[in-house]
Amino acid sequence: MAVLELCADDQYLVASGDTPLLEVWDSLPQGLYPPFPPVELPGGVGGLLARGGFGQNFFFAAEVLGLEFRTPKGRVLRAGGKVVKNVQGYDLVRPFVGSFGTLGEVLRATLRLRPGRERVFVRKTGRLEGLRLEPRFVWQEGETLYAFTFGHPKEVAAFEQAFGGERLGGSLDYRPLFPGGMGVGEGPVRDLRMSWADGGKPPPMPKTFEALVEAL
Amino acid sequence: MAVLELCADDQYLVASGDTPLLEVWDSLPQGLYPPFPPVELPGGVGGLLARGGFGQNFFFAAEVLGLEFRTPKGRVLRAGGKVVKNVQGYDLVRPFVGSFGTLGEVLRATLRLRPGRERVFVRKTGRLEGLRLEPRFVWQEGETLYAFTFGHPKEVAAFEQAFGGERLGGSLDYRPLFPGGMGVGEGPVRDLRMSWADGGKPPPMPKTFEALVEAL
Repeated sequence: MAVLELCADDQYLVASGDTPLLEVWDSLPQGLYPPFPPVELPGGVGGLLARGGFGQNFFFAAEVLGLEFRTPKGRVLRAGGKVVKNVQGYDLVRPFVGSFGTLGEVLRATLRLRPGRERVFVRKTGRLEGLRLEPRFVWQEGETLYAFTFGHPKEVAAFEQAFGGERLGGSLDYRPLFPGGMGVGEGPVRDLRMSWADGGKPPPMPKTFEALVEAL
Repeated sequence: MAVLELCADDQYLVASGDTPLLEVWDSLPQGLYPPFPPVELPGGVGGLLARGGFGQNFFFAAEVLGLEFRTPKGRVLRAGGKVVKNVQGYDLVRPFVGSFGTLGEVLRATLRLRPGRERVFVRKTGRLEGLRLEPRFVWQEGETLYAFTFGHPKEVAAFEQAFGGERLGGSLDYRPLFPGGMGVGEGPVRDLRMSWADGGKPPPMPKTFEALVEAL
Protein backbone atom coordinates (compact mmCIF):
# COMPACT_ATOMS: atom_id res chain seq x y z
CA MET A 1 0.00 0.00 0.00
CA ALA A 2 2.14 2.84 1.24
CA VAL A 3 4.39 4.36 3.82
CA LEU A 4 2.18 4.53 6.91
CA GLU A 5 4.30 6.64 9.20
CA LEU A 6 7.46 8.66 8.82
CA CYS A 7 9.27 10.04 11.82
CA ALA A 8 12.26 12.11 10.74
CA ASP A 9 13.16 13.12 14.31
CA ASP A 10 13.47 9.56 15.58
CA GLN A 11 14.69 8.37 12.18
CA TYR A 12 12.33 5.55 11.35
CA LEU A 13 9.46 4.80 9.03
CA VAL A 14 6.64 2.29 9.07
CA ALA A 15 5.57 0.76 5.76
CA SER A 16 3.16 -1.98 4.80
CA GLY A 17 4.79 -5.13 3.46
CA ASP A 18 3.60 -4.51 -0.09
CA THR A 19 5.03 -1.00 -0.35
CA PRO A 20 7.25 -0.69 -3.44
CA LEU A 21 10.81 0.22 -2.51
CA LEU A 22 10.86 3.33 -4.69
CA GLU A 23 7.70 4.53 -2.99
CA VAL A 24 9.64 4.46 0.27
CA TRP A 25 12.39 6.47 -1.38
CA ASP A 26 9.87 9.01 -2.71
CA SER A 27 8.40 9.51 0.75
CA LEU A 28 11.68 10.44 2.45
CA PRO A 29 12.86 13.96 3.18
CA GLN A 30 16.26 14.95 1.83
CA GLY A 31 19.15 13.67 3.91
CA LEU A 32 17.51 10.52 5.30
CA TYR A 33 18.18 7.10 3.78
CA PRO A 34 16.52 3.68 4.04
CA PRO A 35 18.49 0.42 4.37
CA PHE A 36 18.26 -0.34 0.65
CA PRO A 37 19.48 1.35 -2.54
CA PRO A 38 17.15 3.14 -4.99
CA VAL A 39 16.35 -0.06 -6.88
CA GLU A 40 12.89 -1.57 -7.27
CA LEU A 41 12.81 -5.30 -6.54
CA PRO A 42 10.09 -7.99 -6.55
CA GLY A 43 7.77 -7.99 -3.56
CA GLY A 44 8.50 -4.50 -2.26
CA VAL A 45 9.41 -4.10 1.40
CA GLY A 46 8.08 -7.55 2.36
CA GLY A 47 10.06 -9.30 -0.36
CA LEU A 48 13.20 -7.39 0.54
CA LEU A 49 12.93 -8.42 4.21
CA ALA A 50 12.21 -12.05 3.33
CA ARG A 51 15.38 -12.17 1.25
CA GLY A 52 17.44 -10.39 3.91
CA GLY A 53 18.05 -7.16 1.99
CA PHE A 54 19.84 -6.25 -1.20
CA GLY A 55 23.30 -4.95 -1.93
CA GLN A 56 24.08 -3.90 1.62
CA ASN A 57 27.55 -3.82 3.06
CA PHE A 58 26.33 -3.86 6.68
CA PHE A 59 24.20 -6.04 8.96
CA PHE A 60 20.82 -5.49 7.34
CA ALA A 61 18.68 -7.10 10.04
CA ALA A 62 19.79 -4.48 12.57
CA GLU A 63 18.04 -1.83 10.47
CA VAL A 64 14.69 -3.58 10.84
CA LEU A 65 13.44 -2.23 14.16
CA GLY A 66 10.03 -3.85 14.28
CA LEU A 67 7.74 -6.16 12.38
CA GLU A 68 4.16 -7.29 12.17
CA PHE A 69 3.82 -10.49 10.20
CA ARG A 70 1.32 -13.24 9.48
CA THR A 71 2.69 -16.72 10.04
CA PRO A 72 1.96 -19.61 7.67
CA LYS A 73 -0.58 -20.80 10.28
CA GLY A 74 -2.37 -17.46 10.07
CA ARG A 75 -1.29 -15.96 13.40
CA VAL A 76 -0.42 -12.28 13.38
CA LEU A 77 2.72 -11.60 15.41
CA ARG A 78 4.37 -8.36 16.41
CA ALA A 79 8.05 -8.13 17.27
CA GLY A 80 10.49 -5.35 18.05
CA GLY A 81 9.66 -1.69 18.41
CA LYS A 82 10.28 1.67 16.82
CA VAL A 83 13.40 2.85 18.55
CA VAL A 84 16.91 1.46 18.36
CA LYS A 85 17.11 1.46 22.14
CA ASN A 86 14.20 -0.98 22.22
CA VAL A 87 16.44 -3.78 21.01
CA GLN A 88 16.56 -5.36 24.44
CA GLY A 89 16.25 -9.03 23.75
CA TYR A 90 13.66 -11.70 22.97
CA ASP A 91 14.30 -10.95 19.34
CA LEU A 92 11.82 -12.34 16.81
CA VAL A 93 12.58 -9.63 14.27
CA ARG A 94 16.00 -10.87 13.29
CA PRO A 95 15.08 -14.52 12.57
CA PHE A 96 12.29 -13.31 10.30
CA VAL A 97 14.66 -11.19 8.21
CA GLY A 98 16.24 -13.42 5.56
CA SER A 99 13.98 -16.38 6.30
CA PHE A 100 12.61 -16.35 2.72
CA GLY A 101 8.99 -16.35 3.71
CA THR A 102 9.18 -19.49 5.81
CA LEU A 103 8.01 -17.61 8.91
CA GLY A 104 5.23 -15.83 7.04
CA GLU A 105 4.61 -12.55 5.26
CA VAL A 106 5.31 -8.99 6.39
CA LEU A 107 2.22 -6.94 7.15
CA ARG A 108 4.15 -3.87 8.24
CA ALA A 109 7.75 -3.12 9.03
CA THR A 110 9.53 -0.38 10.94
CA LEU A 111 12.79 0.50 9.22
CA ARG A 112 15.62 2.55 10.59
CA LEU A 113 16.58 5.63 8.58
CA ARG A 114 20.10 6.99 8.58
CA PRO A 115 21.21 10.56 7.93
CA GLY A 116 23.66 11.64 5.26
CA ARG A 117 24.40 15.11 3.93
CA GLU A 118 25.60 13.81 0.56
CA ARG A 119 24.93 10.78 -1.64
CA VAL A 120 26.22 9.28 -4.83
CA PHE A 121 25.02 6.53 -7.19
CA VAL A 122 27.71 5.30 -9.58
CA ARG A 123 28.49 2.44 -11.94
CA LYS A 124 31.46 1.15 -13.89
CA THR A 125 32.63 -1.98 -15.63
CA GLY A 126 33.88 -4.28 -12.91
CA ARG A 127 33.29 -7.17 -10.53
CA LEU A 128 32.65 -7.53 -6.81
CA GLU A 129 35.77 -9.63 -6.40
CA GLY A 130 38.68 -7.55 -5.23
CA LEU A 131 36.61 -4.47 -4.43
CA ARG A 132 38.47 -2.66 -1.67
CA LEU A 133 36.03 0.18 -1.10
CA GLU A 134 33.19 0.20 1.41
CA PRO A 135 30.12 1.89 -0.03
CA ARG A 136 26.87 1.29 1.89
CA PHE A 137 25.52 -0.65 -1.09
CA VAL A 138 27.29 -2.43 -3.90
CA TRP A 139 26.23 -5.06 -6.42
CA GLN A 140 27.10 -6.50 -9.79
CA GLU A 141 24.76 -6.80 -12.79
CA GLY A 142 26.42 -8.68 -15.60
CA GLU A 143 29.88 -7.13 -15.84
CA THR A 144 28.81 -3.79 -14.39
CA LEU A 145 29.43 -2.81 -10.80
CA TYR A 146 26.93 -0.48 -9.11
CA ALA A 147 27.45 1.39 -5.86
CA PHE A 148 25.31 3.72 -3.81
CA THR A 149 26.59 5.45 -0.72
CA PHE A 150 25.78 8.41 1.49
CA GLY A 151 27.29 10.22 4.45
CA HIS A 152 29.59 13.14 5.08
CA PRO A 153 30.27 15.09 1.86
CA LYS A 154 34.03 14.51 2.19
CA GLU A 155 33.60 10.75 2.59
CA VAL A 156 31.21 10.55 -0.33
CA ALA A 157 33.52 12.59 -2.57
CA ALA A 158 36.50 10.43 -1.57
CA PHE A 159 34.50 7.31 -2.39
CA GLU A 160 33.42 8.63 -5.77
CA GLN A 161 36.96 9.54 -6.72
CA ALA A 162 38.32 6.14 -5.68
CA PHE A 163 35.51 4.22 -7.40
CA GLY A 164 35.53 6.15 -10.65
CA GLY A 165 32.92 5.24 -13.24
CA GLU A 166 29.90 7.34 -14.13
CA ARG A 167 27.22 8.94 -12.02
CA LEU A 168 23.67 7.67 -12.20
CA GLY A 169 20.65 9.84 -11.56
CA GLY A 170 17.37 8.51 -10.30
CA SER A 171 16.72 4.84 -9.70
CA LEU A 172 16.68 1.37 -11.26
CA ASP A 173 13.88 -1.14 -11.68
CA TYR A 174 15.09 -4.74 -11.50
CA ARG A 175 11.65 -6.34 -11.46
CA PRO A 176 11.81 -7.20 -15.19
CA LEU A 177 14.93 -9.28 -14.44
CA PHE A 178 12.92 -11.55 -12.09
CA PRO A 179 9.54 -12.29 -13.70
CA GLY A 180 9.46 -15.66 -11.91
CA GLY A 181 10.40 -14.21 -8.54
CA MET A 182 13.76 -13.34 -7.00
CA GLY A 183 15.63 -16.18 -5.32
CA VAL A 184 19.08 -17.58 -4.81
CA GLY A 185 20.97 -19.18 -7.71
CA GLU A 186 22.97 -18.36 -10.81
CA GLY A 187 21.44 -15.20 -12.14
CA PRO A 188 21.88 -11.72 -13.53
CA VAL A 189 22.63 -9.91 -10.27
CA ARG A 190 25.02 -10.58 -7.38
CA ASP A 191 25.67 -8.78 -4.13
CA LEU A 192 28.12 -9.47 -1.29
CA ARG A 193 25.87 -12.22 0.11
CA MET A 194 24.16 -13.95 -2.77
CA SER A 195 23.75 -14.52 -6.46
CA TRP A 196 20.14 -13.67 -7.33
CA ALA A 197 18.26 -15.70 -9.93
CA ASP A 198 14.92 -15.38 -11.68
CA GLY A 199 12.69 -18.05 -10.21
CA GLY A 200 15.49 -18.89 -7.78
CA LYS A 201 14.86 -20.93 -4.69
CA PRO A 202 15.37 -20.03 -1.06
CA PRO A 203 18.66 -21.39 0.25
CA PRO A 204 18.40 -24.71 2.11
CA MET A 205 17.03 -24.35 5.65
CA PRO A 206 19.14 -25.54 8.57
CA LYS A 207 17.44 -28.27 10.57
CA THR A 208 17.51 -26.19 13.73
CA PHE A 209 15.43 -23.49 12.05
CA GLU A 210 12.60 -25.90 11.26
CA ALA A 211 11.52 -26.00 14.88
CA LEU A 212 10.98 -22.26 14.81
CA VAL A 213 8.97 -22.48 11.58
CA GLU A 214 6.80 -25.17 13.14
CA ALA A 215 6.31 -23.20 16.35
CA LEU A 216 5.06 -19.98 14.81
CA MET B 1 37.05 -22.85 30.06
CA ALA B 2 38.99 -20.81 27.57
CA VAL B 3 39.32 -19.24 24.17
CA LEU B 4 39.22 -22.21 21.81
CA GLU B 5 40.20 -20.57 18.56
CA LEU B 6 41.51 -17.19 17.56
CA CYS B 7 41.68 -16.15 13.94
CA ALA B 8 43.24 -12.71 13.61
CA ASP B 9 43.14 -12.76 9.80
CA ASP B 10 39.41 -13.35 9.59
CA GLN B 11 38.84 -11.38 12.79
CA TYR B 12 36.89 -13.77 14.94
CA LEU B 13 37.37 -15.92 18.01
CA VAL B 14 35.59 -18.95 19.38
CA ALA B 15 35.19 -19.22 23.15
CA SER B 16 33.35 -21.61 25.43
CA GLY B 17 30.36 -20.12 27.21
CA ASP B 18 32.07 -20.12 30.59
CA THR B 19 35.13 -18.17 29.45
CA PRO B 20 35.66 -15.12 31.68
CA LEU B 21 35.51 -11.89 29.69
CA LEU B 22 38.95 -10.76 30.79
CA GLU B 23 40.38 -14.08 29.63
CA VAL B 24 39.10 -13.21 26.16
CA TRP B 25 40.80 -9.83 26.44
CA ASP B 26 44.06 -11.45 27.52
CA SER B 27 44.03 -13.79 24.54
CA LEU B 28 43.79 -11.05 21.91
CA PRO B 29 46.67 -9.64 19.92
CA GLN B 30 47.19 -5.90 20.03
CA GLY B 31 44.84 -3.95 17.81
CA LEU B 32 41.89 -6.38 17.82
CA TYR B 33 38.87 -5.80 20.06
CA PRO B 34 35.95 -7.93 21.24
CA PRO B 35 32.34 -6.64 21.40
CA PHE B 36 32.58 -5.87 25.14
CA PRO B 37 34.66 -3.52 27.29
CA PRO B 38 37.46 -4.75 29.61
CA VAL B 39 35.07 -5.41 32.49
CA GLU B 40 34.51 -8.80 34.11
CA LEU B 41 30.81 -9.64 34.55
CA PRO B 42 28.89 -12.59 36.01
CA GLY B 43 28.68 -15.66 33.81
CA GLY B 44 31.50 -14.86 31.42
CA VAL B 45 30.81 -15.00 27.69
CA GLY B 46 27.61 -17.04 28.12
CA GLY B 47 26.18 -14.63 30.68
CA LEU B 48 27.05 -11.65 28.52
CA LEU B 49 25.26 -13.13 25.50
CA ALA B 50 22.20 -14.09 27.54
CA ARG B 51 21.90 -10.48 28.74
CA GLY B 52 22.47 -9.05 25.25
CA GLY B 53 25.85 -7.47 25.95
CA PHE B 54 27.09 -4.70 28.20
CA GLY B 55 27.73 -1.02 27.65
CA GLN B 56 27.70 -1.18 23.85
CA ASN B 57 26.64 1.69 21.66
CA PHE B 58 26.00 -0.54 18.62
CA PHE B 59 23.86 -3.54 17.66
CA PHE B 60 25.52 -6.17 19.83
CA ALA B 61 23.83 -9.23 18.32
CA ALA B 62 25.44 -8.54 14.94
CA GLU B 63 28.85 -9.19 16.55
CA VAL B 64 27.85 -12.74 17.51
CA LEU B 65 28.60 -14.68 14.35
CA GLY B 66 27.81 -18.17 15.54
CA LEU B 67 26.57 -20.11 18.52
CA GLU B 68 26.34 -23.60 19.91
CA PHE B 69 23.85 -23.81 22.75
CA ARG B 70 21.99 -26.35 24.85
CA THR B 71 18.26 -25.72 25.01
CA PRO B 72 16.25 -26.17 28.23
CA LYS B 73 15.07 -29.50 26.77
CA GLY B 74 18.67 -30.64 26.40
CA ARG B 75 19.05 -30.36 22.65
CA VAL B 76 22.34 -29.00 21.37
CA LEU B 77 21.79 -26.53 18.53
CA ARG B 78 24.26 -24.80 16.25
CA ALA B 79 23.46 -21.53 14.51
CA GLY B 80 25.35 -19.06 12.37
CA GLY B 81 28.91 -19.40 11.17
CA LYS B 82 32.34 -17.88 11.52
CA VAL B 83 32.36 -15.27 8.81
CA VAL B 84 30.31 -12.10 8.56
CA LYS B 85 29.35 -13.00 5.02
CA ASN B 86 27.69 -16.14 6.35
CA VAL B 87 24.83 -14.07 7.77
CA GLN B 88 22.49 -15.19 5.02
CA GLY B 89 19.23 -15.84 6.81
CA TYR B 90 17.47 -18.44 8.91
CA ASP B 91 18.91 -16.65 11.90
CA LEU B 92 18.75 -18.45 15.25
CA VAL B 93 21.77 -16.59 16.62
CA ARG B 94 20.07 -13.24 17.08
CA PRO B 95 16.99 -14.45 19.02
CA PHE B 96 19.32 -16.23 21.45
CA VAL B 97 21.29 -13.08 22.19
CA GLY B 98 19.49 -11.15 24.90
CA SER B 99 17.01 -13.92 25.64
CA PHE B 100 18.19 -14.16 29.26
CA GLY B 101 18.76 -17.88 29.23
CA THR B 102 15.23 -18.76 28.18
CA LEU B 103 16.53 -20.50 25.02
CA GLY B 104 19.28 -22.31 26.90
CA GLU B 105 22.94 -21.91 27.74
CA VAL B 106 25.87 -21.06 25.49
CA LEU B 107 28.31 -23.91 24.94
CA ARG B 108 30.52 -21.96 22.56
CA ALA B 109 30.26 -18.68 20.73
CA THR B 110 31.98 -17.16 17.73
CA LEU B 111 32.52 -13.45 18.27
CA ARG B 112 33.50 -10.87 15.72
CA LEU B 113 36.68 -8.93 16.45
CA ARG B 114 37.18 -5.40 15.20
CA PRO B 115 40.47 -3.65 14.48
CA GLY B 116 41.60 -0.40 16.05
CA ARG B 117 45.02 1.19 16.09
CA GLU B 118 44.34 3.13 19.27
CA ARG B 119 42.16 2.70 22.37
CA VAL B 120 41.23 4.67 25.45
CA PHE B 121 39.48 3.83 28.71
CA VAL B 122 38.27 6.90 30.65
CA ARG B 123 35.97 7.93 33.47
CA LYS B 124 34.56 11.10 34.91
CA THR B 125 31.76 12.26 37.17
CA GLY B 126 28.66 12.28 35.04
CA ARG B 127 25.49 10.61 33.83
CA LEU B 128 24.39 8.88 30.65
CA GLU B 129 21.61 11.39 30.12
CA GLY B 130 22.65 14.10 27.70
CA LEU B 131 25.84 12.35 26.58
CA ARG B 132 26.46 13.57 23.04
CA LEU B 133 29.55 11.50 22.26
CA GLU B 134 29.60 8.09 20.63
CA PRO B 135 32.22 5.85 22.22
CA ARG B 136 31.92 2.13 21.40
CA PHE B 137 31.10 1.45 25.07
CA VAL B 138 29.71 3.69 27.75
CA TRP B 139 28.05 3.04 31.10
CA GLN B 140 27.33 4.65 34.43
CA GLU B 141 28.27 3.28 37.86
CA GLY B 142 26.81 5.41 40.62
CA GLU B 143 27.57 8.97 39.54
CA THR B 144 30.61 8.01 37.48
CA LEU B 145 30.53 7.70 33.72
CA TYR B 146 32.88 5.17 32.08
CA ALA B 147 33.74 4.98 28.40
CA PHE B 148 35.93 2.69 26.34
CA THR B 149 36.54 3.24 22.68
CA PHE B 150 38.98 2.25 19.96
CA GLY B 151 39.63 3.08 16.34
CA HIS B 152 41.73 5.48 14.33
CA PRO B 153 44.21 7.35 16.57
CA LYS B 154 42.77 10.73 15.52
CA GLU B 155 39.21 9.68 16.35
CA VAL B 156 40.25 8.23 19.69
CA ALA B 157 42.20 11.37 20.61
CA ALA B 158 39.27 13.57 19.58
CA PHE B 159 36.95 11.49 21.75
CA GLU B 160 39.25 11.65 24.75
CA GLN B 161 39.55 15.41 24.51
CA ALA B 162 35.79 15.88 24.20
CA PHE B 163 35.00 13.46 27.03
CA GLY B 164 37.61 14.72 29.46
CA GLY B 165 37.94 12.85 32.75
CA GLU B 166 40.81 10.59 33.71
CA ARG B 167 42.41 7.67 31.93
CA LEU B 168 42.04 4.19 33.35
CA GLY B 169 44.58 1.47 32.86
CA GLY B 170 43.76 -2.21 32.86
CA SER B 171 40.30 -3.53 33.57
CA LEU B 172 37.41 -3.60 36.03
CA ASP B 173 35.76 -6.49 37.84
CA TYR B 174 32.04 -5.92 38.42
CA ARG B 175 31.29 -9.42 39.68
CA PRO B 176 31.35 -8.31 43.35
CA LEU B 177 28.49 -5.89 42.53
CA PHE B 178 26.26 -8.79 41.50
CA PRO B 179 26.68 -11.64 44.03
CA GLY B 180 23.07 -12.73 43.37
CA GLY B 181 23.46 -12.59 39.61
CA MET B 182 23.14 -9.76 37.12
CA GLY B 183 19.65 -8.91 35.92
CA VAL B 184 17.43 -6.00 35.05
CA GLY B 185 16.20 -3.59 37.74
CA GLU B 186 17.26 -0.67 39.87
CA GLY B 187 20.92 -1.27 40.52
CA PRO B 188 24.45 0.06 40.69
CA VAL B 189 25.21 0.08 36.97
CA ARG B 190 23.34 1.38 33.92
CA ASP B 191 24.12 1.31 30.22
CA LEU B 192 22.25 2.67 27.21
CA ARG B 193 19.81 -0.27 27.27
CA MET B 194 19.25 -1.28 30.87
CA SER B 195 19.69 -0.67 34.54
CA TRP B 196 21.50 -3.69 35.96
CA ALA B 197 20.61 -5.00 39.42
CA ASP B 198 22.07 -7.58 41.77
CA GLY B 199 19.70 -10.53 41.73
CA GLY B 200 17.69 -8.72 39.06
CA LYS B 201 15.17 -10.52 36.95
CA PRO B 202 15.01 -10.98 33.19
CA PRO B 203 12.69 -8.46 31.58
CA PRO B 204 9.16 -9.73 30.89
CA MET B 205 8.95 -12.00 27.84
CA PRO B 206 6.64 -11.03 24.97
CA LYS B 207 3.97 -13.65 24.35
CA THR B 208 5.16 -14.18 20.79
CA PHE B 209 8.57 -15.28 22.05
CA GLU B 210 7.12 -18.05 24.18
CA ALA B 211 6.38 -20.17 21.10
CA LEU B 212 10.06 -20.11 20.22
CA VAL B 213 11.07 -21.09 23.76
CA GLU B 214 8.63 -24.00 23.63
CA ALA B 215 9.81 -25.11 20.21
CA LEU B 216 13.50 -25.37 20.99
